[in-house]
Amino acid sequence: MSVHAFNPAQNGRPGLTVVPDHTEERTVDAAVFRSVFRRHAAGVVVITADAGHGPVGFTATSLVSVSLLPPLVSFSLATSASSWPAISSTGSLVINFLDAGQRDLAGRFATSGIDRFAEPTRWSRLGTGEPVLDDAPSFLRAQVEHRFAVGENHIVVARLAGHAERREHSPLLYHDGQYVTTA
Amino acid sequence: MSVHAFNPAQNGRPGLTVVPDHTEERTVDAAVFRSVFRRHAAGVVVITADAGHGPVGFTATSLVSVSLLPPLVSFSLATSASSWPAISSTGSLVINFLDAGQRDLAGRFATSGIDRFAEPTRWSRLGTGEPVLDDAPSFLRAQVEHRFAVGENHIVVARLAGHAERREHSPLLYHDGQYVTTA
Repeated sequence: MSVHAFNPAQNGRPGLTVVPDHTEERTVDAAVFRSVFRRHAAGVVVITADAGHGPVGFTATSLVSVSLLPPLVSFSLATSASSWPAISSTGSLVINFLDAGQRDLAGRFATSGIDRFAEPTRWSRLGTGEPVLDDAPSFLRAQVEHRFAVGENHIVVARLAGHAERREHSPLLYHDGQYVTTA
Repeated sequence: MSVHAFNPAQNGRPGLTVVPDHTEERTVDAAVFRSVFRRHAAGVVVITADAGHGPVGFTATSLVSVSLLPPLVSFSLATSASSWPAISSTGSLVINFLDAGQRDLAGRFATSGIDRFAEPTRWSRLGTGEPVLDDAPSFLRAQVEHRFAVGENHIVVARLAGHAERREHSPLLYHDGQYVTTA
């Protein structure tokens, strides 16, 4: 009988030798974090809502799909953000997609201390009451289902209720500190 | 004294008339959901871990940054996914970034029923034990902090512990059913 010592680096796979990785690792401080995520391209949307005190809206690069059935998406928002009080209590919201040419709109809804809904922003209300950007090429209406507190932020999960498309568009992306589109 | 009737569509803003939006809205079924998110471009990573039963890994387009301080990210994974049992119990994991040329690697880690770590995959173990892809241009090591059950999926929140960069890269994106890069 032959005896084989257990080698955790081999993971129980005969014949497989796993070489340790000696790539140098840095601690993830704020500068490293920014540098890494600047290079992780992300789609850009503007999320709008009204919890009864007027419209709020903010540019988000954290929108992702979570589940197909039911249709769920998530995004995150700093608890200190000006839009958080409305998002913390609204039952529904609108996800406004932006097209590749709408850098100005994305920038306006990422700027603090201005009235983001003033001119030149064009907006309306859906029949269900939520504010929507008139220039968004398509939008989703969603019901908020969960708000998870994570550090100084919340991850919000919303169930998609409706979708409207006004025109075809190329997506606006944020990558390397700039708004770009796909090649 | 003049009396102004409160008009909720005006939101208390004098002079602002908000026109209702009559864009036709569709219910979000699976086909609409797929169609919308196919057009929402997303960065592509491969997440790897080992909870003690061998390496697991899967391609994710749901990685987003949640918080800068502390450095937190989130991603979602179907509870039915083959990697979920390991991700449900692992303390740490590796986020492998992919570059624009690595469509094959992304495809392999999105394919069911194969050994994703077999040739031609090249992988190693970090000094801390986690599996890592040798061909990833950069990677993050992270500690799992939260697992939120959402429908048939989990949103996983992890705190970034280390980052290593092997070479500069252009990001791999998933958009409109295809792997692409930025323009």
